[in-house]
Amino acid sequence: MSWTVYLSGEIHTDWRDQIIKGAEELNLPVTFTSPVTDHDASDAAGDVLGREGDSFWRDHKSAKVNGIRTRTLIQQCDVAVVRFGDKYRQWNAAFDAGYCAALGKPYITLHDENIVHALKEVDAAAMAWAESPAQVVDVLRYVITA
Amino acid sequence: MSWTVYLSGEIHTDWRDQIIKGAEELNLPVTFTSPVTDHDASDAAGDVLGREGDSFWRDHKSAKVNGIRTRTLIQQCDVAVVRFGDKYRQWNAAFDAGYCAALGKPYITLHDENIVHALKEVDAAAMAWAESPAQVVDVLRYVITA
Amino acid sequence: MSWTVYLSGEIHTDWRDQIIKGAEELNLPVTFTSPVTDHDASDAAGDVLGREGDSFWRDHKSAKVNGIRTRTLIQQCDVAVVRFGDKYRQWNAAFDAGYCAALGKPYITLHDENIVHALKEVDAAAMAWAESPAQVVDVLRYVITA
Amino acid sequence: MSWTVYLSGEIHTDWRDQIIKGAEELNLPVTFTSPVTDHDASDAAGDVLGREGDSFWRDHKSAKVNGIRTRTLIQQCDVAVVRFGDKYRQWNAAFDAGYCAALGKPYITLHDENIVHALKEVDAAAMAWAESPAQVVDVLRYVITA
Amino acid sequence: MSWTVYLSGEIHTDWRDQIIKGAEELNLPVTFTSPVTDHDASDAAGDVLGREGDSFWRDHKSAKVNGIRTRTLIQQCDVAVVRFGDKYRQWNAAFDAGYCAALGKPYITLHDENIVHALKEVDAAAMAWAESPAQVVDVLRYVITA
Amino acid sequence: MSWTVYLSGEIHTDWRDQIIKGAEELNLPVTFTSPVTDHDASDAAGDVLGREGDSFWRDHKSAKVNGIRTRTLIQQCDVAVVRFGDKYRQWNAAFDAGYCAALGKPYITLHDENIVHALKEVDAAAMAWAESPAQVVDVLRYVITA
Amino acid sequence: MSWTVYLSGEIHTDWRDQIIKGAEELNLPVTFTSPVTDHDASDAAGDVLGREGDSFWRDHKSAKVNGIRTRTLIQQCDVAVVRFGDKYRQWNAAFDAGYCAALGKPYITLHDENIVHALKEVDAAAMAWAESPAQVVDVLRYVITA
Amino acid sequence: MSWTVYLSGEIHTDWRDQIIKGAEELNLPVTFTSPVTDHDASDAAGDVLGREGDSFWRDHKSAKVNGIRTRTLIQQCDVAVVRFGDKYRQWNAAFDAGYCAALGKPYITLHDENIVHALKEVDAAAMAWAESPAQVVDVLRYVITA
Repeated sequence: MSWTVYLSGEIHTDWRDQIIKGAEELNLPVTFTSPVTDHDASDAAGDVLGREGDSFWRDHKSAKVNGIRTRTLIQQCDVAVVRFGDKYRQWNAAFDAGYCAALGKPYITLHDENIVHALKEVDAAAMAWAESPAQVVDVLRYVITA
Repeated sequence: MSWTVYLSGEIHTDWRDQIIKGAEELNLPVTFTSPVTDHDASDAAGDVLGREGDSFWRDHKSAKVNGIRTRTLIQQCDVAVVRFGDKYRQWNAAFDAGYCAALGKPYITLHDENIVHALKEVDAAAMAWAESPAQVVDVLRYVITA
Repeated sequence: MSWTVYLSGEIHTDWRDQIIKGAEELNLPVTFTSPVTDHDASDAAGDVLGREGDSFWRDHKSAKVNGIRTRTLIQQCDVAVVRFGDKYRQWNAAFDAGYCAALGKPYITLHDENIVHALKEVDAAAMAWAESPAQVVDVLRYVITA
Repeated sequence: MSWTVYLSGEIHTDWRDQIIKGAEELNLPVTFTSPVTDHDASDAAGDVLGREGDSFWRDHKSAKVNGIRTRTLIQQCDVAVVRFGDKYRQWNAAFDAGYCAALGKPYITLHDENIVHALKEVDAAAMAWAESPAQVVDVLRYVITA
Repeated sequence: MSWTVYLSGEIHTDWRDQIIKGAEELNLPVTFTSPVTDHDASDAAGDVLGREGDSFWRDHKSAKVNGIRTRTLIQQCDVAVVRFGDKYRQWNAAFDAGYCAALGKPYITLHDENIVHALKEVDAAAMAWAESPAQVVDVLRYVITA
Repeated sequence: MSWTVYLSGEIHTDWRDQIIKGAEELNLPVTFTSPVTDHDASDAAGDVLGREGDSFWRDHKSAKVNGIRTRTLIQQCDVAVVRFGDKYRQWNAAFDAGYCAALGKPYITLHDENIVHALKEVDAAAMAWAESPAQVVDVLRYVITA
Repeated sequence: MSWTVYLSGEIHTDWRDQIIKGAEELNLPVTFTSPVTDHDASDAAGDVLGREGDSFWRDHKSAKVNGIRTRTLIQQCDVAVVRFGDKYRQWNAAFDAGYCAALGKPYITLHDENIVHALKEVDAAAMAWAESPAQVVDVLRYVITA
Repeated sequence: MSWTVYLSGEIHTDWRDQIIKGAEELNLPVTFTSPVTDHDASDAAGDVLGREGDSFWRDHKSAKVNGIRTRTLIQQCDVAVVRFGDKYRQWNAAFDAGYCAALGKPYITLHDENIVHALKEVDAAAMAWAESPAQVVDVLRYVITA
């Protein structure tokens, strides 16, 4: 059986690459999916439909176009990994976690220890909390091949 | 018909009271529900089951006990209002918004303009964005009685 | 048992009043619900959240606020009546019919014979097609009290 | 991952061909599905089961046979594109949009600006509004490959 | 707690009355619901919408109107009792049983021993098989008040 | 796209073979599935788990084992064809039709005209009524390839 | 708001009474529901439908009759409490816990520490683990009234 | 069609191997899936995320990691086989059975006759009870290929 794993959240570090590479090295039968991770492209996702002058509606339009991708990929995944960085508020990551929880999709959070308290509700509904991409790979390896 | 409105998110200002008072003055047929809004009580929700030494597990235990309340009330509401303050990361509010979105529950966000960009995914899945409790009351009045 | 009947669609004639009056005369245990039927109020539903300059976004904002009401009432109804007039395109009425169909909510269409061909998909998924409010009342009477 | 896109609505112009050709030129991994787009064949879909004398029932019978195809394809698609032309009432297109909305399927509307107001409820529940097939292709390219 | 029990199937004997009377004598907190049990009225349910010449379509129209009632009541019941008499084919009773099974609604079959083999699939998905209305009342009494 | 069609009901004539052969001649991309159609094998399905003395329980046991197959195949099909012969009561066929209706699976009934009245509820929830296997093949050809 | 709490599991000690009494003393707005807790009555639940000679089928019949009650009450509860005693295997309690988990119903386990390891999967899907009825009452008080 | 069969429960005897071998000898088109069956590995599943000092939380963490695998595989299977040995309490097996029941997944229990009474609720919701792996293979062969 092949697994599909959605990688949600922070887009400013290379955590996705580390997980993907780690899984490849172990030959795990996993297909990884992600939101668009190019920040500028993501912000401009709706511009092709006509550029908005008002920044709220530009964001709205782009967020909805991005939503076509993210909702579909979340609904099709077997497991999600939701990454929170220290610097940003990443409400979209928490939103994805809530979305997974309501659908009954298992998800793993990936974040440092110093934001544990602020993430307690998100972690409480998760199946695991990892502090490093290597730990995520270990969990995937175990879950998929053990 | 009576409506049930769940008030999710920030617990450090009196936005809930303003909405409740505003709805009462208009005699709107609304029952408001909320998470536990006493910060210390919420953090200690699991302590009655045995105090944990490890802070991650104390948080985990309390967040799950709180989850009995919050999931049930979200599932029973007709509409949710999700409030984001400027100061905190309030990932639980974004989590609730994602949970509502997956269930098809309409929700209204309540936040200042300066965090619009960071909240674009959460707002894009919302039915309305309000900047003040008075606006929320106006929307409820319209939706319920117009 | 009391029934809830949602009256969707055309807002320029008094068909809702005729059905409500007809049901009252028969003392049917029915609660009727409706979208906001004041055209101008409906178009302005989002203005309280800040008036938009762009007409597409004004419509968008108002339609979403109206959606809080209409989705909730459709989900709570037992039966819907969907009315199509001759003059307007009433895509929202057809949208509501499709929404009911996907939810498995039974609905009755109400329209003249001359638009039967254009409405064939909407009628095919309906439980009944009525040509007058009096016929709708007859069907409700039979369904509820027979 | 391969995507399935359902092309709903107007059948009198070549908008489907334009989208399909555009996607082929970009080698997008998309399978397109459609209702039967031959108007006469569609109207006659039920005739094989015995031709009806009454036109309402002929329409009813054909619309149900067509429904076997359209419901199945909508349920299996990842995204729908719903096209409204200027000339016809296309209630079936709005019906499909409502059906998608209730199922949580993302859809893109495709129509000219002059019918924006009449389509406000349908657009408000859509993930995007496009004015040309080329824009639809752009959105698909972004959503699928970005 | 009050229970709602739907009484489906055969309409030519007084089994419904026996169950209702039996439950009343025990003061069971039960609301009983039923399809329309007047055979002629049921066959004519659609006539108010215009009498059909073709008997297939007359049946079709009436069956759909009756469906507004029966689907709604089945979806709202806690338990169904499905009665099969010896003389008729009562495919509608078996249809209701299948409908209940797919919804996860528990149902009790009520029929004589001589048709056990023909009903084996329907009985296999039932929670109980009773041979008399008195037994149904006994089961309800136990289930509700024990 | 390949379609899966479940052939439910009567097992004493060769209607399944006719449909399968007809579809093969047209090269329709259809996979057909069926319940076990060997009457004796079906009645004995549970015997491997220990033969029951009591005929009710033997039937019960076998019907449940058969149910593993039939429920799974119905849930996986795109369309069902439900066949009623003249001679038998085939309550299992009507049960399957009700099961499909509750799941929102489209189904086609296949039966002679003389049992139209008794099947009116089953036909009213169907997408089409065919009188011959050839008509079923025609409908499948149209629905799948038109 | 009033809450409904289902008390599942062990029937040989008075833990249900303790919880009910505790909730009454605090005037909690809770309705408690339970399976039939009279062991002999529960084993004999199916006898009214004809006593079986074979003990497997007697158990089967009674368990199904009991299932009418337990499934309905579990589906209607807001929260379940699942009690495991030390002496018995109480597979039905674990079955109820799995049933709740799949439905997304929050549940609290109630058991001694010495069986923690054997119950780890059941506890991992629970929202809380309590060791005494008094703790359950404390959690309910907090969740419902805080 | 290929079937997926999940093998839940007891991990101390070779019943899984017997079923898999039996199915292979018959060339059944079945993919078998299982929880992690290495007892120590399963208990340590969460250790990679940081070893817990408290045994409750170690169990909790491991059970959740195992849950990523088991929930996903149960949701993807067509049929489950749930094995109860004589010696252990295997609450996780009963939990899986309840989970299957709520999802409408058919399952077969596999256990000796001496624990029939204690398993009556679990057996009552099952589609079959087998006493040996060979019987399970027989049922699968029949269900899949007959």
